[in-house]
Amino acid sequence: MSEFKLTTVEEFEAATARLLETGAKVGADSWQMRVKNQTPHCKFGEQGVCCRICSMGPCRITPKAPRGICGCDVHGIVGRNFLRFTAGGAATHSDHGREICITLGHAKEGGDYQVKDPEKLIRIAKEWGVETEGKDIYDLAHEMSDLAQEEYGKIRGVSRWLKRAPQHTQDLWHAAGIEPRAIDREVSCALHMTHMGNTSKPEALIRQALRNGLSDGWGGSMCGTEFSDVLFGTPKPIDTEANLGVMNAENVNIVVHGHDPSLSEMICEYADSKEMIDYAKSMGAKGITVSGVCCTSNEVAMRRGIPMAGNFLQQENVVLTGACEAIVVDVQCIFPALGPLSKCFHTKFITTSPICQMPDSDFIEFDAGTAGEKAKQIVKLACENFKNRKPELVHIPDLKHKATVGYSVEAIVKTLDGVTNSQVDETGTTKPLLECITSGVIRGAVAMVGCNNPKVRPDTAHIELMKKLIANDIVIIASGCSAQAAARAGLMDKAAKDLCGAGLKRVCELADIPPVLHMGSCVDISRMLILAAELAKDSGLNISQLPVVGCAPEWMSEKAVSIGNYVVATGLDTYLGVDPYVSGSTEVASLLTEGVRDWVEAAYTVEKDIDKLGDLMIARIEEKRDALGI
Amino acid sequence: MSEFKLTTVEEFEAATARLLETGAKVGADSWQMRVKNQTPHCKFGEQGVCCRICSMGPCRITPKAPRGICGCDVHGIVGRNFLRFTAGGAATHSDHGREICITLGHAKEGGDYQVKDPEKLIRIAKEWGVETEGKDIYDLAHEMSDLAQEEYGKIRGVSRWLKRAPQHTQDLWHAAGIEPRAIDREVSCALHMTHMGNTSKPEALIRQALRNGLSDGWGGSMCGTEFSDVLFGTPKPIDTEANLGVMNAENVNIVVHGHDPSLSEMICEYADSKEMIDYAKSMGAKGITVSGVCCTSNEVAMRRGIPMAGNFLQQENVVLTGACEAIVVDVQCIFPALGPLSKCFHTKFITTSPICQMPDSDFIEFDAGTAGEKAKQIVKLACENFKNRKPELVHIPDLKHKATVGYSVEAIVKTLDGVTNSQVDETGTTKPLLECITSGVIRGAVAMVGCNNPKVRPDTAHIELMKKLIANDIVIIASGCSAQAAARAGLMDKAAKDLCGAGLKRVCELADIPPVLHMGSCVDISRMLILAAELAKDSGLNISQLPVVGCAPEWMSEKAVSIGNYVVATGLDTYLGVDPYVSGSTEVASLLTEGVRDWVEAAYTVEKDIDKLGDLMIARIEEKRDALGI
Repeated sequence: MSEFKLTTVEEFEAATARLLETGAKVGADSWQMRVKNQTPHCKFGEQGVCCRICSMGPCRITPKAPRGICGCDVHGIVGRNFLRFTAGGAATHSDHGREICITLGHAKEGGDYQVKDPEKLIRIAKEWGVETEGKDIYDLAHEMSDLAQEEYGKIRGVSRWLKRAPQHTQDLWHAAGIEPRAIDREVSCALHMTHMGNTSKPEALIRQALRNGLSDGWGGSMCGTEFSDVLFGTPKPIDTEANLGVMNAENVNIVVHGHDPSLSEMICEYADSKEMIDYAKSMGAKGITVSGVCCTSNEVAMRRGIPMAGNFLQQENVVLTGACEAIVVDVQCIFPALGPLSKCFHTKFITTSPICQMPDSDFIEFDAGTAGEKAKQIVKLACENFKNRKPELVHIPDLKHKATVGYSVEAIVKTLDGVTNSQVDETGTTKPLLECITSGVIRGAVAMVGCNNPKVRPDTAHIELMKKLIANDIVIIASGCSAQAAARAGLMDKAAKDLCGAGLKRVCELADIPPVLHMGSCVDISRMLILAAELAKDSGLNISQLPVVGCAPEWMSEKAVSIGNYVVATGLDTYLGVDPYVSGSTEVASLLTEGVRDWVEAAYTVEKDIDKLGDLMIARIEEKRDALGI
Repeated sequence: MSEFKLTTVEEFEAATARLLETGAKVGADSWQMRVKNQTPHCKFGEQGVCCRICSMGPCRITPKAPRGICGCDVHGIVGRNFLRFTAGGAATHSDHGREICITLGHAKEGGDYQVKDPEKLIRIAKEWGVETEGKDIYDLAHEMSDLAQEEYGKIRGVSRWLKRAPQHTQDLWHAAGIEPRAIDREVSCALHMTHMGNTSKPEALIRQALRNGLSDGWGGSMCGTEFSDVLFGTPKPIDTEANLGVMNAENVNIVVHGHDPSLSEMICEYADSKEMIDYAKSMGAKGITVSGVCCTSNEVAMRRGIPMAGNFLQQENVVLTGACEAIVVDVQCIFPALGPLSKCFHTKFITTSPICQMPDSDFIEFDAGTAGEKAKQIVKLACENFKNRKPELVHIPDLKHKATVGYSVEAIVKTLDGVTNSQVDETGTTKPLLECITSGVIRGAVAMVGCNNPKVRPDTAHIELMKKLIANDIVIIASGCSAQAAARAGLMDKAAKDLCGAGLKRVCELADIPPVLHMGSCVDISRMLILAAELAKDSGLNISQLPVVGCAPEWMSEKAVSIGNYVVATGLDTYLGVDPYVSGSTEVASLLTEGVRDWVEAAYTVEKDIDKLGDLMIARIEEKRDALGI
């Protein structure tokens, strides 16, 4: 196996360059061109020192104009912008979670949506104190759907999910005054606090940012993950492939893109039916290939092994292959550019959610009630579009890699149980993983998450950091676009164990896992919270003592900042490769990188030099090991 | 009475200039200076074409860079910014409303908070289908408090208050898909739709902006107004005074500022107690004067006749008098500048709400549970601070005017019932007012609302427009800082009838009212919605047919845009003197000024020339009269 070779970023880039040639032929715009047009960026905006919160401005802080018209100083302005950025992300993730809860309310025996993991539903119901005995599983699902939706608007109490955290963590949250109440209320509260003439004290703004983040991670996102598992099955290890080469020139290619699995699950279901395959054949294709982009891709890869065509900055590439009959999107991270771009090809750009309505798209509104019917309509439309392909424009890069994905917490625990030695007699816990860490066979773990961002050479940071970390016996848990970068490079191929240090390599061999474990989509970072909580409980340590950190080296969305806030607030140091528009305020920057540690025992590090970022994480992990004497 | 004279804006300005001299002596900063530092404003921001929603940017749209990095065009960017601006305002007003609902839950017999208008509480309870018969009023208050809070987060249905609108209006909302669901959900939904990679279609963004606005006007703000009336009494006509001259150099001056009456009501209560007055005397003062700034001022003026020191852009002036012992603030529109400014004087700047935490302030956290105790603490602190005055800095401008305020809908109806002629036999309706309008004695009504904004010569637009309108027999209902501008100028003095056309003058004389009716604070614009709804129901017309328009000539806050959206969505044409950062998109601008008319029978007009703005409103009113043949 010494011949194992990753696909390099250079190879990614060569493939992209070839696709952009096709784009040039048809007069297509591209993000690469738009980045050039939009560079350099506004420095005021980048530093977070521009305020547009009222119409007296906009105001911009400079040495000569140290306060806005209302008198707000730079720390207040940067802090408000940061809190609003967080609120945007928390609202977005959480609203996705809400849709899943609503879909759960539509589940029925034999229906489009069914309860695929009744055991998990019952487990959560018991956690929430709901009577399950002798209850029809669908009655229970509907009851839980209501209770989950009420988490968004209940008038008393804090998030039900907080109780999953170790008591110490819950105590920290309580003492810091950052326990989230109803999810939507924290969003409104954040906007209220940052409205003109309200909070300008950085400390208060950052506290609310952490609270808002927690309402996402231990709230809306956790609803999203947990009830997606209930509806669509809790992921377990499954083989798939990744990169543009998963598209098939002879088949009808449907690309699902976005975040909400409710749509893509149905598309996959119908695309796999004999009726639709026959229909595709009747249109001249050999079959149907569904592949994915972004987190919708992660969702269906984790549960169905649907191949992953690409991550965030690959979304235009799937159209540029000339072989995409339909790109079907739900919500979030969809380039509006797909509208005009698809018009340069035969591709149907199909929007489906009221949340994501775009010009130059076919809007086929999708909801839980009519899911099957709409999914079928979309698959048929794609099949019918096969004949409109322009063969001279078709080019699918010959790049793909094997990947084993599907590592939910349950799957990780189960996998490690399989290799537990006789001395560790308890199964169903994280103790085997702890054993590996304590013994030093694995030095620690890094949660690699987040997007791509043209400010970082795409995928490089993800891939280079992972290579460095696994070589240092640090296991990676990955989600979102970071996971896809790994998969496309080959880091989720079990053969990638050859790139690991000796300890991690041995664990990979024994457990038959890749060194980078795909935990799912970006809402599924809630899985990482649960894993950290379980590790802490099983070890008797605080989360902040574990040799585990989080990293988002190429993040770009508000969701990523909300995630960062809940990861930090959960006690895990978090490393960013892109600055969250806060460099303009020493006070805010120092709160985020130091001050919050007093409340939650963790903080941010921002470092644009990726190599240094890796060194810092390794050093931090070793520091934590030293403190534990392991 | 021909000698009646308004206080002129020039006189306002002279008083301010004198105060700024004091400011200069002590090295104080001022908004006037900061405006100079912040001018010219960023054109990208002013036009709404700058996007900071993800960290790939910021992006700015120019002819050479017509799309952001994600491919969003200028219409999507401007539309998203507009929706987020609205969401900020809707969340803010509504969260204020929620606080009132929570306070209602703390009401008890003999407690700090009591039900002062049980009749209104019972009326609302009946509207909401709540059993009231034989129920203890405080039990009912607590039940209604919960139900009202649930309006923010309920998982099914639309706002309960929508039913107050005429059926035709409700039908329009339903057809347009803009009936608001739970209040906080609409805020989250707005943030989700505008997150990177979601809606970029202007029409969808503007629909949600209207829905978000409605969740405020016929939701959170209406909760705020109605339950404030229940707790503190429904306003009725009461005499007071306005302008800086209401402060008293011999007394301890406490200035209340912000929006939530829960705090200011308690301050007023204690400041009026013998114990506190004696305490003030023991400190060398002759007594205690409480006066107000912004909407907190409107709240206590409407219910207690507490004098109004000034509106938004006067807030620094109260400190500059050198005679302000404490400026006590709750939430919204508080200049962070008051922190450093108060340090130049002996003034205590007391923040009280977790929503509004500011540097350089004394934070005395106020909540419904400890209201009395905290209010007393604050009043005492102010008294004790009297001795720290620097007499050489004390100068209170000798400017004030009489004003009659307190015109809730109930008060307007009752006042007009008093002069109803025998032919109109039904009392308790808006029919007498309709009679005046139909007969042409009054040509119509304008709802004058909104803030000050240095982009408009402060107060001039409010005052000049009102003068012009009343001279044309158009009655003014006013709220917020607009109402205060009127009061300070003298337009709420009953003698101002002399400035009216003959018809309106006669009505003012008969009904013994001023021509500009103070309807309250900015959340109280919900009163105007109710008035419009009642006028429509009583006349059998649609709201959009009434010769009534809304106007915010000097607005500056996100709340104002939320208000604008719900006023337009209610069917009332709305006239703005400041552009809501949308000039960069022809599509968004044309939707707001024309397109929305297809959905809600009203639209915006933006016109910076104030005289022209007045002409446009008069023309519109006459056009509506013509259409009705009256």
